[in-house]
Amino acid sequence: MSRIAIASITALLIVGQARAAEPITLRDMGSFHVGGRLVEISGKPVKEVVFAPGGVPAKVDPNGTYQVEQMYVQYFLPANEKGAYPLLMWHGGGLTGVTYETTPDGREGWLNYFLRKGWAVYNSDAVERGRAGWAQYPDVFKSEPVFLTTANPFERFRIGDGPNSYDPDPAKRKVLPGNQFPVEGYENFVKQNVPRWTTTDDATIAAYIAEIDRVGPSVILFHSQAGSFGFKVAQARPDKVKALIAIEPAGIGDPARADVLKNIPTLIIYGDYIERDSRWPKIRANGIAFADAIKAAGGSVDIVDLPQAGIKGNSHLVMMDKNNLEVAALIQKWLEGKGLTK
Amino acid sequence: MSRIAIASITALLIVGQARAAEPITLRDMGSFHVGGRLVEISGKPVKEVVFAPGGVPAKVDPNGTYQVEQMYVQYFLPANEKGAYPLLMWHGGGLTGVTYETTPDGREGWLNYFLRKGWAVYNSDAVERGRAGWAQYPDVFKSEPVFLTTANPFERFRIGDGPNSYDPDPAKRKVLPGNQFPVEGYENFVKQNVPRWTTTDDATIAAYIAEIDRVGPSVILFHSQAGSFGFKVAQARPDKVKALIAIEPAGIGDPARADVLKNIPTLIIYGDYIERDSRWPKIRANGIAFADAIKAAGGSVDIVDLPQAGIKGNSHLVMMDKNNLEVAALIQKWLEGKGLTK
Repeated sequence: MSRIAIASITALLIVGQARAAEPITLRDMGSFHVGGRLVEISGKPVKEVVFAPGGVPAKVDPNGTYQVEQMYVQYFLPANEKGAYPLLMWHGGGLTGVTYETTPDGREGWLNYFLRKGWAVYNSDAVERGRAGWAQYPDVFKSEPVFLTTANPFERFRIGDGPNSYDPDPAKRKVLPGNQFPVEGYENFVKQNVPRWTTTDDATIAAYIAEIDRVGPSVILFHSQAGSFGFKVAQARPDKVKALIAIEPAGIGDPARADVLKNIPTLIIYGDYIERDSRWPKIRANGIAFADAIKAAGGSVDIVDLPQAGIKGNSHLVMMDKNNLEVAALIQKWLEGKGLTK
Repeated sequence: MSRIAIASITALLIVGQARAAEPITLRDMGSFHVGGRLVEISGKPVKEVVFAPGGVPAKVDPNGTYQVEQMYVQYFLPANEKGAYPLLMWHGGGLTGVTYETTPDGREGWLNYFLRKGWAVYNSDAVERGRAGWAQYPDVFKSEPVFLTTANPFERFRIGDGPNSYDPDPAKRKVLPGNQFPVEGYENFVKQNVPRWTTTDDATIAAYIAEIDRVGPSVILFHSQAGSFGFKVAQARPDKVKALIAIEPAGIGDPARADVLKNIPTLIIYGDYIERDSRWPKIRANGIAFADAIKAAGGSVDIVDLPQAGIKGNSHLVMMDKNNLEVAALIQKWLEGKGLTK
């Protein structure tokens, strides 16, 4: 190894240590719930419930008024704010705000990265996910919840090489060649998954609109299922959305109203292995068509296929991949280029 | 108003502003899931699910292996650590770690308070709550989930004056006289509630043990339903639990093994209005009897009935009450007195 190479590696190690050691200084942190509505449930029998072992039974009348369909938001405000607007992070399906926290193998996620870059970050759990709580079904939600097996995300999120690539024995799993997902943390990722419904989109969008109405003009970074949420909320509040960053959006906005987004700078990022997947070529094509509609109306959409930008091996879970901070730096640079930093 | 009174109020306002303005400096923050187990589900039909509107249908086979009964932990490590051990915060029934975050009326909660005091705080969502996720029932959990009406916590958590004290119209609610709960934030508190089961105690305790095994020797602060969890986990790991702070514990440990806790300094705090409640005299008596058993074995338990300490009007949700920081200061002083700060 040449001296220059060794010097470069040493410099990288020092930079890495320096970053880990730098404190995060917050002027404030906290949380709130927002949105939702009240519903009435009637005609059911009163139950007697012992809430704690050895506790005293309490009567619980299931009839009455319930709060449903709110969402949860946790915010971190840096002391030295450098983002021109707050940065809202919206997770994908079957997940929560944990998506943007520590990666499954214990590295820093995008929440910390963008906070360290001076963004006021609002990380949230969508309606019926995580700390948002969830409501009775079929009384309130009109479908049953979906649970994923340990194998499902491995084969569907472009970590493994498609169907039957998962095996309970990690040594026997067929990982896509060069994949950046931290497979040694896959068991931890599975623990991040939560049940989800497929009939709650309207409620979810309503709550996200309530969030942006409360926080004010913002940049929204959203992933996967939140593709349709990000674009649709921006169509509902075009004056309050200052930029859209779509990470592998699995859904889109209303194509008939694509022109509403023409003044919102938009970045769409796709990972690797799209072409060999059974579903992602079509999903990506939907996203590209929607971007084309925005551009046809005079809008600005930058599409980055990471492999074409020299960033290879990304799964669907870009923010958890081993090169997650490299992609974050690409996003940060794009935001700076759009004049969205102070 | 006298000049002295005005000067005092001015001083209070300045102190309040100074506290709000002081930054929180973290050497790190992040999260992890811990605990849980794998279960097999079999004999069910394959479903086709469209995960995002306009998306491409994916097959979901409900048969297979599921990860269940893990818990979620979010940690904040202060740059200038002054706690001798990490401080674990465990919430009560039907709630999540949000319990210790911003109060329902937007003030600082105990998470920020103890972080500002230099404690490394590990705030968590127990098994089947919030970001911990939840599992199929009756396949995995053996009962149905419990949902609370908007009225239920108001009447059961000693905010309102017992049954029928709640009214949809805030102006018509019968609040206990002098109550410290921020009733103007009651609607926000209701949004913090999540469904819960009553048959998951063993799984919850197993996950909490996994948490303390991972974090190492710790102080545990726990509320309400977590009364039994805090004491039982301490009985399972007496060498790793350096202090117990029970806030209105609704359950207790194993009385036959109370002696196991004799070397763990313990503080139990009760709020106001206990004697006029239908359930809390008995719940408190259970707690006192358990404390007596620990003391009889040579242990040290301090019981603080807040009204007798001159702190009046506390509901069951002490950490959210308007005087929450006054109670936090009492706890901090107790910890300092036990030599648990650096």
